[in-house]
Amino acid sequence: MLCQLTLRSRSCQYGALSLNFCSLPVAVRSSASRRTGKVLHYLGTPAGIIDVLCIVPAPLALVCGVAPETAWLFAALWVLKLTQDSPGFAQLGRVFVVEANALASVLVLFLIALFLASAAMYALERQNQPQVFGTLPAALWWAVETLTTTGYGDEVPLTALGRLLGAMVMICGIATFGLWTGILATGFAAENRRRNFIQTWDLVSKVPFLQTLDPSAITEITHMMRRVEVPARTAVIRRGKVGDCMYFIAEGEVEVDVEPAPIRLGAGAFFGELALLGDLTRTANVSTTNSSTLLVLDLADFRTVMAHHSELARAIDAEAKRRQGDNQRRRELHAHEVSS
Amino acid sequence: MLCQLTLRSRSCQYGALSLNFCSLPVAVRSSASRRTGKVLHYLGTPAGIIDVLCIVPAPLALVCGVAPETAWLFAALWVLKLTQDSPGFAQLGRVFVVEANALASVLVLFLIALFLASAAMYALERQNQPQVFGTLPAALWWAVETLTTTGYGDEVPLTALGRLLGAMVMICGIATFGLWTGILATGFAAENRRRNFIQTWDLVSKVPFLQTLDPSAITEITHMMRRVEVPARTAVIRRGKVGDCMYFIAEGEVEVDVEPAPIRLGAGAFFGELALLGDLTRTANVSTTNSSTLLVLDLADFRTVMAHHSELARAIDAEAKRRQGDNQRRRELHAHEVSS
Amino acid sequence: MLCQLTLRSRSCQYGALSLNFCSLPVAVRSSASRRTGKVLHYLGTPAGIIDVLCIVPAPLALVCGVAPETAWLFAALWVLKLTQDSPGFAQLGRVFVVEANALASVLVLFLIALFLASAAMYALERQNQPQVFGTLPAALWWAVETLTTTGYGDEVPLTALGRLLGAMVMICGIATFGLWTGILATGFAAENRRRNFIQTWDLVSKVPFLQTLDPSAITEITHMMRRVEVPARTAVIRRGKVGDCMYFIAEGEVEVDVEPAPIRLGAGAFFGELALLGDLTRTANVSTTNSSTLLVLDLADFRTVMAHHSELARAIDAEAKRRQGDNQRRRELHAHEVSS
Amino acid sequence: MLCQLTLRSRSCQYGALSLNFCSLPVAVRSSASRRTGKVLHYLGTPAGIIDVLCIVPAPLALVCGVAPETAWLFAALWVLKLTQDSPGFAQLGRVFVVEANALASVLVLFLIALFLASAAMYALERQNQPQVFGTLPAALWWAVETLTTTGYGDEVPLTALGRLLGAMVMICGIATFGLWTGILATGFAAENRRRNFIQTWDLVSKVPFLQTLDPSAITEITHMMRRVEVPARTAVIRRGKVGDCMYFIAEGEVEVDVEPAPIRLGAGAFFGELALLGDLTRTANVSTTNSSTLLVLDLADFRTVMAHHSELARAIDAEAKRRQGDNQRRRELHAHEVSS
Repeated sequence: MLCQLTLRSRSCQYGALSLNFCSLPVAVRSSASRRTGKVLHYLGTPAGIIDVLCIVPAPLALVCGVAPETAWLFAALWVLKLTQDSPGFAQLGRVFVVEANALASVLVLFLIALFLASAAMYALERQNQPQVFGTLPAALWWAVETLTTTGYGDEVPLTALGRLLGAMVMICGIATFGLWTGILATGFAAENRRRNFIQTWDLVSKVPFLQTLDPSAITEITHMMRRVEVPARTAVIRRGKVGDCMYFIAEGEVEVDVEPAPIRLGAGAFFGELALLGDLTRTANVSTTNSSTLLVLDLADFRTVMAHHSELARAIDAEAKRRQGDNQRRRELHAHEVSS
Repeated sequence: MLCQLTLRSRSCQYGALSLNFCSLPVAVRSSASRRTGKVLHYLGTPAGIIDVLCIVPAPLALVCGVAPETAWLFAALWVLKLTQDSPGFAQLGRVFVVEANALASVLVLFLIALFLASAAMYALERQNQPQVFGTLPAALWWAVETLTTTGYGDEVPLTALGRLLGAMVMICGIATFGLWTGILATGFAAENRRRNFIQTWDLVSKVPFLQTLDPSAITEITHMMRRVEVPARTAVIRRGKVGDCMYFIAEGEVEVDVEPAPIRLGAGAFFGELALLGDLTRTANVSTTNSSTLLVLDLADFRTVMAHHSELARAIDAEAKRRQGDNQRRRELHAHEVSS
Repeated sequence: MLCQLTLRSRSCQYGALSLNFCSLPVAVRSSASRRTGKVLHYLGTPAGIIDVLCIVPAPLALVCGVAPETAWLFAALWVLKLTQDSPGFAQLGRVFVVEANALASVLVLFLIALFLASAAMYALERQNQPQVFGTLPAALWWAVETLTTTGYGDEVPLTALGRLLGAMVMICGIATFGLWTGILATGFAAENRRRNFIQTWDLVSKVPFLQTLDPSAITEITHMMRRVEVPARTAVIRRGKVGDCMYFIAEGEVEVDVEPAPIRLGAGAFFGELALLGDLTRTANVSTTNSSTLLVLDLADFRTVMAHHSELARAIDAEAKRRQGDNQRRRELHAHEVSS
Repeated sequence: MLCQLTLRSRSCQYGALSLNFCSLPVAVRSSASRRTGKVLHYLGTPAGIIDVLCIVPAPLALVCGVAPETAWLFAALWVLKLTQDSPGFAQLGRVFVVEANALASVLVLFLIALFLASAAMYALERQNQPQVFGTLPAALWWAVETLTTTGYGDEVPLTALGRLLGAMVMICGIATFGLWTGILATGFAAENRRRNFIQTWDLVSKVPFLQTLDPSAITEITHMMRRVEVPARTAVIRRGKVGDCMYFIAEGEVEVDVEPAPIRLGAGAFFGELALLGDLTRTANVSTTNSSTLLVLDLADFRTVMAHHSELARAIDAEAKRRQGDNQRRRELHAHEVSS
């Protein structure tokens, strides 16, 4: 009974939106009392389903009279717990949900090829190898391992016609592979772009400098940037290296190693733009003081942004000049202090 | 005769457009009488071809003297019926038609590699393993299972040169795989984008709010949206969750669970925009009352649209404010009624 | 000597541009007399190289004392002739040339994994299976068939450590596959887009209607259209079907089946736009009279073009209205003539 | 100890940015004396790590009492040196770093499928084939070779349920393949676009003609161009061939073979535009005199640039006309000189 409910809520999920993976149908919820409802609700969530799968099958198998050494194998379902905390799985799950129709079509195509191939192979090789291709299920097994190009080699056609069929089945297998991969690649690229935007959008709002741009520029720049987590006390830029990106600090702090004393830049600041404006050579070491979240803007995108948004170009230019002047003044002041 | 006609119409299809899969050449049609013409016409459609393939081969095989246990295998062709109602197959079929040239080139490349590899392997391993590589067809079989990386293991080169050739054939096999997949991925991405636009276009025309935009904005927003079918009485949005998209109702009805009484929104309305305008947290539960068709606009695209089309931004903003004020008023009215 | 020259010109080609596949280095050409130069020049072209490969090896092998039954196998090189006339091969070749660096990196990565895996497997399994993994070349053979996931099964690790290594090698194999495919997919998509533009550009210049647009609109529409070859007397559009594209006639002629008499449209005309402007239902049969080259504009792109280029939208609208009026008038005239 | 340090700096790298592959954590650096610091620093770079891996393991193994014939196998690690000078590896490395999260998710998915499949297969086939599936590690080995579709065939399920499970595992294997490939294809396309821009940007700045454009046009054209290295004295364009691209000279020199005397064009000049402006037929031979770096602009992109940037279109048109006039004048002058 419990199992059926769980299954029902699960099958509803696929009909519903991927965002509502944890929604029990309203119909079920309203018919249950409040407390049982809460438990049922938890069991309807992915976490609940996984907990049930981890705990229930092993004792159930023992009760049903399964041998203990087989029953404890159900404990292997605990590995499903691994899927819970990873953001990557939500992403992969979404790709499968969005591309479900296309993937199902390929699966049906695969199954059709499977049945036709096994029937044909059964007809062609039954006489020659009665032990190997004597039954339809055996021919089906051959078709599966050939279409997926696994090829155990326990069942191999020997007649000329059988081998011709085998060759065609293998080529169909490659095509299926290709379609499957093509669908997933398409879906993954779209999902990737989407996730990246959402992650970055939140961080961009923490950089006051970018908030002065007009909305269309903010959207464009959000699409371009990539989030990077850097642990504390790690070098981000090394003097003399070729630099091909600039950084905005969304969270954390970095230390720029300039003479006479290092400068600290906090959340909202940017650095690394001097190399992009000049000859791509880094002019100072920069390392994080705390664990930080940086937004990376690549050279190609930097050029595009600078070209399209002259107000940003002017602002970055002004800030870069101000910094160079500042450093100059500080060096002179320092030299003056030392000499006096 | 019938078979030839069917085949002829089939071969014409590939020359013709994919959209006219069911067209018999005019030449054939005009030479047939009206009634026979209709039957022939049906037999020329994919449905007709599949029906013929389902019905004709089994009795034909019996008549031709094939053993009954082999003849009934032709009934397996019934699985082709599965391809008829699925829209996914039309899509996959179009990819193959559009990319036919490129796929054919890869196939020819594959065949060339096949023949060269088998001739070379026949020359290299014939002396050592006369039972295995003693004939050219046997070497060809080895080449097929190696190029497709199936690798049954029934024929394996033993000499050093033979194994070197084998290694090269395997690497060629991976390259063929890669090309094939690359072509299908490219074709599928284009086809996917096209199908999505056509599906969405029809639904967008049912949302009056979007029809007020200028044509270029409608086209842009149609490209961005994704269609989702939601069954009746299913939660779409849950309060407190992170929201990363908004919804337009193309068909059906949803219920927004606000105090004091839920509001119903019908076809043409939109919801879920409050979270996107604020801090991405959903403020109310929303669930469908009937089976509905929704158009989903992701956060990334929502931002882009809002940035590029200020009139839409203003309209959504105004509607959002109106709703918040409305809810406020209704709550006050309700509080007043309850207290009085 | 001849062979060396041929090889040299071949190696130069890869350094040179893909477009000059047939160029002998200037240095070679100037040092040869005019007539020999011409022959050498032909031998330097791909056609020449293939001709040499078809003719020379078989007699050469006989002269060198190879057994006749082996020598005639070189005739298999004739299949290379297949690559000559196909435009698809030029395209695939360009992908390989443009992505040569990346593909070479993956190949080197593959070779590194190969050597490390075979050395490690030799160390781990030598004691247990001296017949199978007793020599380094044998271990190398195992590494090749495992990295390509061919898996003949003639050499299989038995120890726990060996199998752990085997698992890692297989996973590396999948990664190599993936990289290879990713590179080819990327390259192929770019090449495809490029080829399609060049093919279409030429045809677009034959449609006077499109030539009235400004250059940026022509470029945009050229990117969107797809070329289709239709044989003579084939139906292109069937009344009552759903239509999702319109056609421009680049070459050939079509017949539109309207009452009272069919209309013929020649090169430069367009048709199929009525369905796209209305409810996507075709209103008349259209079939080719001669073998024709059509340019197809999909619904999604049609909408985009209409939205961005109002002058084109107006022109198509006007033409569509003119046709509808024309048909109306002709029908009335015909009715009048029949009745009078 | 050394090994631990090396490993620690290596694991930090993955947390840090891909650009700082060679950065030792600041914490480590400050605790070491200056000289040891430098050595440690070198050992922390990829070059250092590879040098250590090449030199240390073999003697270490000998010292630890490993048999010499096994110990010398560690010399195989020298092949890692191959990865050092190739720019392609940096690119592949970046793809792996940027897509690390997604790839890790697929790997975890792969491992979960692995454990569940092996536990299930152990339960199903243990009774039937105690020698083959008698232990969990043996079942795990089967799962690995089946999920990767390697299929050695040393362990094959025989029961109906076992084969059904096997079929499902194979299909999961294809899906894993597909996801992996999709992720790498997406990442590679982005990385490719980025690298190409950086390579080209530098060269574009060497063409004065392009520097007169406004920044947004320069960025756009940089995205479109492709760099090609041509050795000295190699033909780039051959008269009478179809031309589908034009060239800008970033470095080196070419010779245009016009009557009466060839013209030399140096860095900053362009050629090949006449065919693109006319009927795509090349009008003269062009070959390099020195080893040159050319920037290629394809026809499709050329048309787009000409359409969007009228000042560039005018400039190229003017230059083309000037050249044709020039050639005409020179020919007339030459004819005059010869006749007089």
